[in-house]
Amino acid sequence: MSFSFTIHATAGAARAGVFVTPHGPVSTPAFMAVGTLATVKALDPLDLEAMGAQMILANAYHLHLRPGDEVVRELGGLHRFMGWNGPILTDSGGFQVFSLEGLRTVTEDGVEFRSHIDGSRRHFTPESVIRIEGNLGADVIMQFDHVVPGQSDEGVAREAMERSVRWAGRCLEEFERLRDEARGTRDETNELVPRPSSLVPHEQTLFPIVQGGIHAELRRESVRALVDMHDWAGYGVGGLSVGEAKADMYGMLDVVDVALPADRPRYLMGVGFPEDLIEGVRRGVDLFDCVAPTRMGRNGTAFTDEGRINIKRADFRNDPRPIMEACGCSACRRFSRAYVRHLYVCDEILGLRLLSLHNVHFLVSLMRDARAALAAGTFDAWSRDWLARHHSKPEAQAR
Amino acid sequence: MSFSFTIHATAGAARAGVFVTPHGPVSTPAFMAVGTLATVKALDPLDLEAMGAQMILANAYHLHLRPGDEVVRELGGLHRFMGWNGPILTDSGGFQVFSLEGLRTVTEDGVEFRSHIDGSRRHFTPESVIRIEGNLGADVIMQFDHVVPGQSDEGVAREAMERSVRWAGRCLEEFERLRDEARGTRDETNELVPRPSSLVPHEQTLFPIVQGGIHAELRRESVRALVDMHDWAGYGVGGLSVGEAKADMYGMLDVVDVALPADRPRYLMGVGFPEDLIEGVRRGVDLFDCVAPTRMGRNGTAFTDEGRINIKRADFRNDPRPIMEACGCSACRRFSRAYVRHLYVCDEILGLRLLSLHNVHFLVSLMRDARAALAAGTFDAWSRDWLARHHSKPEAQAR
Repeated sequence: MSFSFTIHATAGAARAGVFVTPHGPVSTPAFMAVGTLATVKALDPLDLEAMGAQMILANAYHLHLRPGDEVVRELGGLHRFMGWNGPILTDSGGFQVFSLEGLRTVTEDGVEFRSHIDGSRRHFTPESVIRIEGNLGADVIMQFDHVVPGQSDEGVAREAMERSVRWAGRCLEEFERLRDEARGTRDETNELVPRPSSLVPHEQTLFPIVQGGIHAELRRESVRALVDMHDWAGYGVGGLSVGEAKADMYGMLDVVDVALPADRPRYLMGVGFPEDLIEGVRRGVDLFDCVAPTRMGRNGTAFTDEGRINIKRADFRNDPRPIMEACGCSACRRFSRAYVRHLYVCDEILGLRLLSLHNVHFLVSLMRDARAALAAGTFDAWSRDWLARHHSKPEAQAR
Repeated sequence: MSFSFTIHATAGAARAGVFVTPHGPVSTPAFMAVGTLATVKALDPLDLEAMGAQMILANAYHLHLRPGDEVVRELGGLHRFMGWNGPILTDSGGFQVFSLEGLRTVTEDGVEFRSHIDGSRRHFTPESVIRIEGNLGADVIMQFDHVVPGQSDEGVAREAMERSVRWAGRCLEEFERLRDEARGTRDETNELVPRPSSLVPHEQTLFPIVQGGIHAELRRESVRALVDMHDWAGYGVGGLSVGEAKADMYGMLDVVDVALPADRPRYLMGVGFPEDLIEGVRRGVDLFDCVAPTRMGRNGTAFTDEGRINIKRADFRNDPRPIMEACGCSACRRFSRAYVRHLYVCDEILGLRLLSLHNVHFLVSLMRDARAALAAGTFDAWSRDWLARHHSKPEAQAR
């Protein structure tokens, strides 16, 4: 089997482990940088390699529209296309499609929507999305799910959760059909005639997505139904950080942590900010992703140990210090705040790159520190200290 | 002396040599990438190092306005500010100031103009520009000159050329005053009391600029006046590639080549395109600079051995080949045209970086090939072949 997950250390619900994929191992907990359109915005794959990023994301919805998943397949799949030979995960695009408020119609079959690029009419079903993700060729592919706003009432959340479970089943069936098709053909006695191994693409694995909004019982039902359906290599936890209160999100993580099998990695989708990563790890989450570090970088904001800073601040004009004093990233090792501010103020592309690089490095390093604390048996104290320092910052109070 | 120039091989007027600066040697002929605002647009200094770029440019006018030359000085000078420890040349900003048509008034003293950033009133004189360039701390600094359009008649061109010569004298005087001030103070008997060497900044050298439009006699007069004035470490050749016919530009290079001292490097300012570099080297030019490779890169155009290509072309949508087949740049070694096109079409920053990187690498490599041909004694045939191939391309016919 090309996928495995081994836990090496725990502290309460928190775990340090290794998730093995066909493109290499991922030490968890880990933050995955988001490369929606097959590029982590403003960064080069070499930047990601140099900072120790292990696994990155891409998005099936966006890549289906541009350049087209068939094109990516023709060019050898996502890894070759984007020059990243490490593990990749594709999100199915459920979140994107359901965000097209007013441009989409949902039925049990799937979703009719209009492309946000050219308005063309499109139809996604659980089956078609799995075919798209098959063409893209990521290591981990996510099921097509029904996403609802974080504050949805129980009726709405139940409908979406139950549909997501049914769609997980359809995704799995199509996934297994494609996998068998890739491995060989059946002869007249239904015996497998294997394809030459050079023609078999690397294995993928499909993660289902736990839904249920902020309703504990729905989350538990979702997990039960998915666990009963199949022995998945890992689980996504979706529909969080989409408008609900932080306390509700953390509460749901506690519920899901207890309900999910302990020996499979859990991926908390679309989360998050540094404090959310720490809170998530404390509640048994292994994988995270979020556009925040690159998006905030392009908006001139940098994560630091002292809280967020806006690089445009007038007092940075002649500040010789790096973005963050203790940081070992390629931006902080070489450049002053004054220089990065200058680049940003002058709309220079290098400024966007340096800020994005620093921010992704910040989250990748934070998870490296969490793993080290888990391995050393100091995680509980380390994470409490980190959170206490964080909550003492003015910005944390304001939120 | 911190600056020297040694010629190792010649072929007709063409020369291969080494121009030594306080921040290292520059093998000539060489193309210098333009980093107007202390960044070569879309590139990282590490990209430039990796491709073998030797010397880069920055611009005194732009850096005086943002972030301010005093700020750059306070932060340790341009080299430290921008993280580039190789040789740097600053252009004085004469070209930029004289381009502010309608926003400037020229007198013998200098130029009054309004900042293109905030409309604030500014005054540049030869002396003030040298002080700005002193603060920036490049290795080579250019005189403040009077630039006129390429098609200017003899009267206009003469006035600008003669003023540029007078301003060269004033620049030199201020340059020497600042240099002496940096080295130490004079006691009551006018004896030099040297400053501790740790406080003396690295040496700079000032290049004058040959002007005279497309009028051979004016060019010769300009050279004579400058050569009589001082034993300069090198010469700029300005006011070309500013609207005149190519044949006129090449004609002026022939004139200037004969007139200038052979043992000093010649820097043809703001040139150019690949064919202009080859034509320039054949006429004794040693250094070039131009924004074309980065500007065209940001516009989706790439230089190749087969002529220019526009990456947006529909047939590149699934083209697995690199931008240019024989290219060894970091973009071509890793990515397909299909990927770079995808990035460009989706406004992804990495696309701008890869195209800019490829284009600068193309010119840096072209000059490396020219040096190799000069060293091997094959330059005349090599450059003729190159030009013949170039002129056989459809794009060359169209221009």
